Amino acid sequence: MKPIKTVILIGAGNVATHLGMALKTNGIEVLQVYSRTGKSAAALAQKLDSYCTTDVNKILPHADLYIFSVTDGALEDLLNEFTIENAFVVHTSGSLDMNILKNRNLRYGVLYPLQTFSKKVKISFSNIPLCIEAQDDEHLMLLMKLGRKISRKVEHITSPQREALHIAAVFACNFTNHLFAIADEILEKEKLSFELLQPLLDETLRKVKTHKPADVQTGPAVREDHAIMQKHLEKLSALPAYQKIYNFISQSIMESKGKNQKS
Amino acid sequence: MKPIKTVILIGAGNVATHLGMALKTNGIEVLQVYSRTGKSAAALAQKLDSYCTTDVNKILPHADLYIFSVTDGALEDLLNEFTIENAFVVHTSGSLDMNILKNRNLRYGVLYPLQTFSKKVKISFSNIPLCIEAQDDEHLMLLMKLGRKISRKVEHITSPQREALHIAAVFACNFTNHLFAIADEILEKEKLSFELLQPLLDETLRKVKTHKPADVQTGPAVREDHAIMQKHLEKLSALPAYQKIYNFISQSIMESKGKNQKS
Repeated sequence: MKPIKTVILIGAGNVATHLGMALKTNGIEVLQVYSRTGKSAAALAQKLDSYCTTDVNKILPHADLYIFSVTDGALEDLLNEFTIENAFVVHTSGSLDMNILKNRNLRYGVLYPLQTFSKKVKISFSNIPLCIEAQDDEHLMLLMKLGRKISRKVEHITSPQREALHIAAVFACNFTNHLFAIADEILEKEKLSFELLQPLLDETLRKVKTHKPADVQTGPAVREDHAIMQKHLEKLSALPAYQKIYNFISQSIMESKGKNQKS
Repeated sequence: MKPIKTVILIGAGNVATHLGMALKTNGIEVLQVYSRTGKSAAALAQKLDSYCTTDVNKILPHADLYIFSVTDGALEDLLNEFTIENAFVVHTSGSLDMNILKNRNLRYGVLYPLQTFSKKVKISFSNIPLCIEAQDDEHLMLLMKLGRKISRKVEHITSPQREALHIAAVFACNFTNHLFAIADEILEKEKLSFELLQPLLDETLRKVKTHKPADVQTGPAVREDHAIMQKHLEKLSALPAYQKIYNFISQSIMESKGKNQKS
């Protein structure tokens, strides 16, 4: 099968935008951008020197690959409207099984970039792990080759693995960011800047590059310093949601410690 | 008052070790190391070309500064045994008020290094913020000058601020590490490496160097994508402690979003 040289983006959100830019920069032609919202389709098409449409029936039939980058909830309806026979389609979702694309007279796979995209923040795509899956080896190879053009880290990841990866990413990235937001709020009340914590954050991240996270756990909970934990919980009494989080994570650290020692 | 040139370390744990090494490297003489445990006192004294004792009555009386770096619970008893009159003493605790040192015929202050110390992991002290507090301006200046010898970031932080900082650090560092451990465990079950998440972690940290954490929150909770959250909670049913954490942090993210939008 000939390599992928042309793609059509179905969707114009954060993932479609970053993916489209990376593909264009690396010599893949984006023939067209589809989005239900004319404005976002036009904006992305302009960035990519491409064309746009808001009519699913006007999606061009001759692209080597159709990248569906829409919300999980919107994908199934959109697939039902998509009528190009035997097209090669992928979705970019962390949580949807590949088989949602099966039995539709399509060739199919998954292209999931493991990254957090904010419209506000620029990002270098080449460092982003691309998780690839496909209906068969032949299509897997096509996607692998395409993936290697835009990322240095392309991995074959099955649907159950991808779901685990997505959950792990929610804990390690989305939830971590919320803990940072809580810390920021606590500091703000005492007129302190979040910047003070930066060296500590750098070190927290640096440690887990070379050690298993469970092996380098520090803090009151892993020391089972109940006096300090009690003091912190009292100080958090005006912030019951954060008090709850403090309590449950501390409990979990103490339980994990037991588990690790036993094993 | 003349600058601090000699110190005695009371305690030989992680903080005392890293602090002692940094002081010695920067020309401050460590006259002696006291610890209840002879072995750890001897080990640290050897590293610092110093002397050790396990007898509180043999602590030398002529040091410019006595650094009490022991657990919060042990400090008060040790202070009661410490009989050198008018000595200049500091503690290194994140959570104890400075006033624990008051009314003891001592001059006093606090020297709290805001960092996570593991015996296994080497660290450069000069990047560690040092939080300084003292009984009066004169002693504050002495500690500031000492602090600037070993760190590029020395800040005057009051006791209530220090407690807030400590709680914030528990959220942003200790709890974050536990979230990494949870992610690692979830990935391990699917035979995936935690390393896959590294670009995502780097990006999560990079974002909060230039943005307020609450402003760059991503993930299912902030999108209020209940379908994905439900799916994740089901997948976590075999890990009830993690399911609880997933649930409470997601709730908290959704509530914070409301707060931020209102304000």
